[in-house]
Amino acid sequence: MSVIYNRVALIGLGLIASSMFWAIKRAGLAGEVTGYARSEATRDTARRIGLCDRVCDTAAEAVEGADLVVMCVPVGAMGQVAAEIAPFLAAGATVSDVGSVKAAVIQAVGPHLPDHVHFIPAHPLAGTEHSGPESGFATLFDNRWCLLVPVDGTDAAALDRLARFWRGMGANVDKMEADHHDLVLAVTSHAPHLIAYTMVGVADDLRRVTDSEVIKYSAAGFRDFTRIAASDPTMWRDVFLTNKDATLEILGRFTEELFALQRAIRTGDGDHLHAYFTRTRAIRRGIIEAGQDTDAPDFGRAKVGR
Amino acid sequence: MSVIYNRVALIGLGLIASSMFWAIKRAGLAGEVTGYARSEATRDTARRIGLCDRVCDTAAEAVEGADLVVMCVPVGAMGQVAAEIAPFLAAGATVSDVGSVKAAVIQAVGPHLPDHVHFIPAHPLAGTEHSGPESGFATLFDNRWCLLVPVDGTDAAALDRLARFWRGMGANVDKMEADHHDLVLAVTSHAPHLIAYTMVGVADDLRRVTDSEVIKYSAAGFRDFTRIAASDPTMWRDVFLTNKDATLEILGRFTEELFALQRAIRTGDGDHLHAYFTRTRAIRRGIIEAGQDTDAPDFGRAKVGR
Repeated sequence: MSVIYNRVALIGLGLIASSMFWAIKRAGLAGEVTGYARSEATRDTARRIGLCDRVCDTAAEAVEGADLVVMCVPVGAMGQVAAEIAPFLAAGATVSDVGSVKAAVIQAVGPHLPDHVHFIPAHPLAGTEHSGPESGFATLFDNRWCLLVPVDGTDAAALDRLARFWRGMGANVDKMEADHHDLVLAVTSHAPHLIAYTMVGVADDLRRVTDSEVIKYSAAGFRDFTRIAASDPTMWRDVFLTNKDATLEILGRFTEELFALQRAIRTGDGDHLHAYFTRTRAIRRGIIEAGQDTDAPDFGRAKVGR
Repeated sequence: MSVIYNRVALIGLGLIASSMFWAIKRAGLAGEVTGYARSEATRDTARRIGLCDRVCDTAAEAVEGADLVVMCVPVGAMGQVAAEIAPFLAAGATVSDVGSVKAAVIQAVGPHLPDHVHFIPAHPLAGTEHSGPESGFATLFDNRWCLLVPVDGTDAAALDRLARFWRGMGANVDKMEADHHDLVLAVTSHAPHLIAYTMVGVADDLRRVTDSEVIKYSAAGFRDFTRIAASDPTMWRDVFLTNKDATLEILGRFTEELFALQRAIRTGDGDHLHAYFTRTRAIRRGIIEAGQDTDAPDFGRAKVGR
């Protein structure tokens, strides 16, 4: 793999940015990687663990001379970051982001950027429930999708270059229109996250079932919900507030369907339940065939020692 | 490990029974293991793969002379199986089951059994999304909980023997009262399963988001739901129909909480969302500390090749 950008600036040093750094280094995709985080503690940690070639004390310093700037902050902070770095962006630089919502980011960021940069929003569909500068790892994006969401009039060469960069970090790349992205993600990510958060909150609330019982017996299904519901609270707050309409629409459909299944349980309509559960099984098969999960029977349990 | 039962009969040869067989063999817990499944195809498969020392063509033959009989069929079939085997049970034998619901099983099975056997309901909290005689593996119960749900007047020696048997298969053993079991499982398993089934069904329904998009981009959270929603439809139909009250109660609490979060999204109440998401994060930490999951950052992804 050869160098694709001479200098990459990562603004915000959490799970995604730190994974990007290790993936860039693995493949030698950048001459230099600079980094900036608002919190001094995060900058100190980054310096201690060798995250970024150079950690800067201001965003302005980090973006100076960079031919790629990637904003890796919660969606709600993107506009402010864009305003802060705008005066210091090099002519011809590409500015991108990794936010989970795209229409709101385009709206918040676009107006701040000068005409002499290429703004190409992006969203890598990868993550874990961990956050912070120490949570990243080089393989996070391997075989995962990164969606590029170009705005009108995007320079084809700049777009192609960013796509090569993400492929170099291990990702598969697709292009998508912003509103469609936000709807697809509401289905595959945002609504499931809110539902998982809700179910974990309900379990935590129930006084007749103690916390220790919920935790001890979590392997029966609840465990997968808790992993999802352990994701970064600030990031997810911003996702729901900025992808409000699509998320509420999907949740409305979800509630309607849930009520129908509850009614089937109440009236003892076993055929309805069986048919529904048979249909959902087929989707799982498709995901395994698409290489987005493993069907190993002891999935995820091998590392749990006795 | 030494032999705990001279002859164990497994009635029903799906995921749990086949895993029990391999776990029994691993530890040498039984002199002989007999097996029976209603479907001839399942019995043929069992014989082909060496599942059970002896596969019988009738349940009566399988239970004859067994000092432990374990009913491993869907909860809705337990009563019928009990009626079928009752005349052939040896005096002093223990009859147990592995059903996910306990009060309904006790009600359905108890009246059929003769006084000269020990009926000790049980529920191993372990499983995968796979089913059938070929889905079992010896380590399924390792470090998982098996809940014993003794009825009034249970023989202490028979109970202790069954507990040693489950520990021999790798499980941790706890005792619990039937109604409390059904409530705890409604929270940790039954409601989460129905919710996952619902969300996967909604995704499948949405025409503006194609199936292939849902599948391609599933790694963003939805993937975990599809694993849960790929579980055996018959088993789960029976669970919901037989643990109706507790499941509907938890789903009612869930809906109430979901509506509150939807309102917070609609009104833009970020503080409410952030506080809620912060609280649910703590539960995850407890599950990892309890050894019921791993916090490896690339959880479950190592086996997914490019």
